Amino acid sequence: MAHESRLTVQLRSLLQSSRVAALGTLGESGAPFVSMVPYVIVPTVGCVAIHVSGLAVHTRNLQARPQVSLLIMQPETQDEPVHALPRVTLEGVAMVPEPESREWHACRKAYLGRFPEAEPMMQLGDFMFVAIQVSGARQVAGFGAARSIAEDDLRQVLGPRPDPA
Amino acid sequence: MAHESRLTVQLRSLLQSSRVAALGTLGESGAPFVSMVPYVIVPTVGCVAIHVSGLAVHTRNLQARPQVSLLIMQPETQDEPVHALPRVTLEGVAMVPEPESREWHACRKAYLGRFPEAEPMMQLGDFMFVAIQVSGARQVAGFGAARSIAEDDLRQVLGPRPDPA
Repeated sequence: MAHESRLTVQLRSLLQSSRVAALGTLGESGAPFVSMVPYVIVPTVGCVAIHVSGLAVHTRNLQARPQVSLLIMQPETQDEPVHALPRVTLEGVAMVPEPESREWHACRKAYLGRFPEAEPMMQLGDFMFVAIQVSGARQVAGFGAARSIAEDDLRQVLGPRPDPA
Repeated sequence: MAHESRLTVQLRSLLQSSRVAALGTLGESGAPFVSMVPYVIVPTVGCVAIHVSGLAVHTRNLQARPQVSLLIMQPETQDEPVHALPRVTLEGVAMVPEPESREWHACRKAYLGRFPEAEPMMQLGDFMFVAIQVSGARQVAGFGAARSIAEDDLRQVLGPRPDPA
C-alpha cells in the first residue's frame, strides 16, 4: 500500500461520509443547472454512480450533453464557520450503462449497498443508473489547502479504472 | 401579510438555516463547474450575494458567462435517509456591483451580518461581491413534493426586487 498524503486521506473520508453531491449539468439554453443527487463510488469500475429519473431535468441534460461536474462537501454544522468546509469538485463524463451489463450490475450493487432504502425505486421503469467517469478533481481541504488532484491520487480513491478502449 | 404556503415557509427556513450553496458556472470549454460558496439573501436588493476571489475558477467563469445556478440543500444527517432532503435550485444572472454603490453596500452589510468572521477577507484586494438576480427556482420539499416557484413566491422569500431598467 503506497503512502497516502493527508489530503488523500481526507478526501477518502469525505467521499465515505457525505452521501449527496451537487450535480452540475448543462441545460439546452446553455445555462448550468445544479441539482442534488445521492451518489456512490463504484471501485470495481472506478466511477461515480447515480440513479436518476428519466423525467428529471438533470437526466435530460446529461444525456444530451454528458460533461458534468459534481461537488461533494462536508455538511455544515450550525454555529460553526463554513468558509473552510472540506469539499471536492469532480469533473467527468456521464454515460448510461446498458441494463444487465457488468457496469450496470456494479453500479446497482454499490448503490444499494449505500442506499438499501432505494430498492423500491429500482422497480420504477423511468429510473436509470448513470456512471460518471471522473477525469479531474479540485479539492479544498481548508484555508490555503487546495489542490488539483493528480490521476494517481484519483485512482487510489476511486478504485481501478477501465482500460482505455 | 399574505398567507404563505407550507412550501414557501419551508423554503424560507431552508434559506435561513443553510449558509452554503453549490454554485454552478459555465467553464470556457463549455463544461459546467460546481463549487461551494457561502451566500446570503439581500432583501433590500432582492438578490443572492456571494463574496469571491478574482483568482477562483467560478469567478472567471461567471464574469465571462453570467448565467449561474445555485443549489441550496438541507445538510444531510448521519444515518438518516438523504433522497428526500429539502433543497432548492435557483437560476439567475450574476453581476459584480460597483464598489461603494448602493447594491455593493447592501451586499456587504448582509454578508457581514451572516458571516462576521469574513471581515478580514474584505481587506483582500482580489475579492469582490457578486449579486445574483434570481429569475426562477425549483424546490423539492420531499418525495412527491416539488414545484417550480412562481415569481410572487420568490419575491416573498427574496425580498423586493429592483424596478426593471
